[in-house]
Amino acid sequence: MGRVTARVRVRRIDGSAARDRLDTLVVEEPLEMRVGGRALTVTMRTPGHDFDLVTGFLIGEGVIADASDVHSLRYCAGATEDGVNTYNVIDVVLAPGVPQPDVSVERNFSTTSSCGVCGKTSLEAVRTRSRFAVADDDVRFSTGVLAALPDRLREAQKVFSRTGGLHAAALVTPEGELLCVREDIGRHNAVDKVVGHAASRYGLPLRGTGLLVSSRASFELTQKALMAGVPLLAAVSAPSSLAVELAVHSGMTLIGFLRGESMNVYAGAHRVAD
Amino acid sequence: MGRVTARVRVRRIDGSAARDRLDTLVVEEPLEMRVGGRALTVTMRTPGHDFDLVTGFLIGEGVIADASDVHSLRYCAGATEDGVNTYNVIDVVLAPGVPQPDVSVERNFSTTSSCGVCGKTSLEAVRTRSRFAVADDDVRFSTGVLAALPDRLREAQKVFSRTGGLHAAALVTPEGELLCVREDIGRHNAVDKVVGHAASRYGLPLRGTGLLVSSRASFELTQKALMAGVPLLAAVSAPSSLAVELAVHSGMTLIGFLRGESMNVYAGAHRVAD
Repeated sequence: MGRVTARVRVRRIDGSAARDRLDTLVVEEPLEMRVGGRALTVTMRTPGHDFDLVTGFLIGEGVIADASDVHSLRYCAGATEDGVNTYNVIDVVLAPGVPQPDVSVERNFSTTSSCGVCGKTSLEAVRTRSRFAVADDDVRFSTGVLAALPDRLREAQKVFSRTGGLHAAALVTPEGELLCVREDIGRHNAVDKVVGHAASRYGLPLRGTGLLVSSRASFELTQKALMAGVPLLAAVSAPSSLAVELAVHSGMTLIGFLRGESMNVYAGAHRVAD
Repeated sequence: MGRVTARVRVRRIDGSAARDRLDTLVVEEPLEMRVGGRALTVTMRTPGHDFDLVTGFLIGEGVIADASDVHSLRYCAGATEDGVNTYNVIDVVLAPGVPQPDVSVERNFSTTSSCGVCGKTSLEAVRTRSRFAVADDDVRFSTGVLAALPDRLREAQKVFSRTGGLHAAALVTPEGELLCVREDIGRHNAVDKVVGHAASRYGLPLRGTGLLVSSRASFELTQKALMAGVPLLAAVSAPSSLAVELAVHSGMTLIGFLRGESMNVYAGAHRVAD
């Protein structure tokens, strides 16, 4: 589809000098996800690897347990008045026996209490239970391998240097290999694309691997890693308090500020070897 | 409430040296917004200025036209088993005559078509019509004022330097004054907090002002500025393709890569004076 970047006219101002030129931007477009014809959500994403994005999103939300829970994915055939298919709507047919997701607005925080997040700790309120335990995953990453990951990620990023607007995520091995790298204007989308691809290719849980993100580590990203059974999350920038809380609670390893030879290990330091 | 940062134990690794120490993180907690007792959404936010956040969010979604459309805001009185109020649920009572929002999952993308974003251009599909026109706002910002804004924003940020994890947004005047600065782990929340505060204090539309963000300029942030009647959005990092499209379409000024003396003007260059 080749819609990852767009060229736009821009006025470049530098001190007192100004000139018009063309600039390359990251494309951002809405993707509507439907399950069985029923709208589930819309995400603003960079087009590309859309089926992986949908699969990864459904795993993160606990709608499916693995890629095999999806029977089929297709772009809706609708087109604009000009006859152009937007490729911005995907309908998912779940495999037989997989329950349809609850699309009510309450589904995100509470289905058992009439009081939503109120009266619960923050972690209880927003946590989606993972089908996979990661606490017993005894994989180890050496500090040398970890330190080399951000540079490898940047090398693998083809778009970022041109536009300055893309987040990246990668599934990595303890040997430092990048099994899958994905970019998106939204860091959650980049992670969904990685998880969706990896689920289709390797199956879940993704034991013995790590997830590397070019951004901060939010609660949401930590939960996505956990839902895919990934025992280690490494972020180039800072984690949030709730990300650390979830990692500690679930036995994950959480690394932040991974920059050159230095890093902060916020949880699960036993998986970081000298 | 003082819950903006949290102290956590961390293992700091630097080359072959490792030591345990305390680190300061940005707090991330869920905030459930209700209107008339009915759940509307949950956002992961940094606590603080929560009423402004809710007010700004409702403006951005087109639920209310100004702060006066809100009759009252209150924290739900529910508490955890330990008797601690979480301050994570806010119920909004709208002023008489203000319609309750549609909380169906479809509300975000289409209420008129059975086909959602399919068959529409991306901009048509996700755009919320603003009640305010900005195209005729003839405010001008000099390049000198614009160039000084990022430094002023950083000076005004109290938390970022300690944690590395906060986005900032500010409402600015053509004289370079920061009328309101807010920080949050989510850049959309930071903007909502600014808009909510400004709506309560000055009323909408926010004609003759600009919105400055420490992050990229996504479609979502551009739309939030537009819904508040702000004619200029300046971002320290890159805009997305759809942000530029919306700015061009609505007559907004959109500036990206605002760094030192240099900046890219993607739309509405007539508001940028020498």
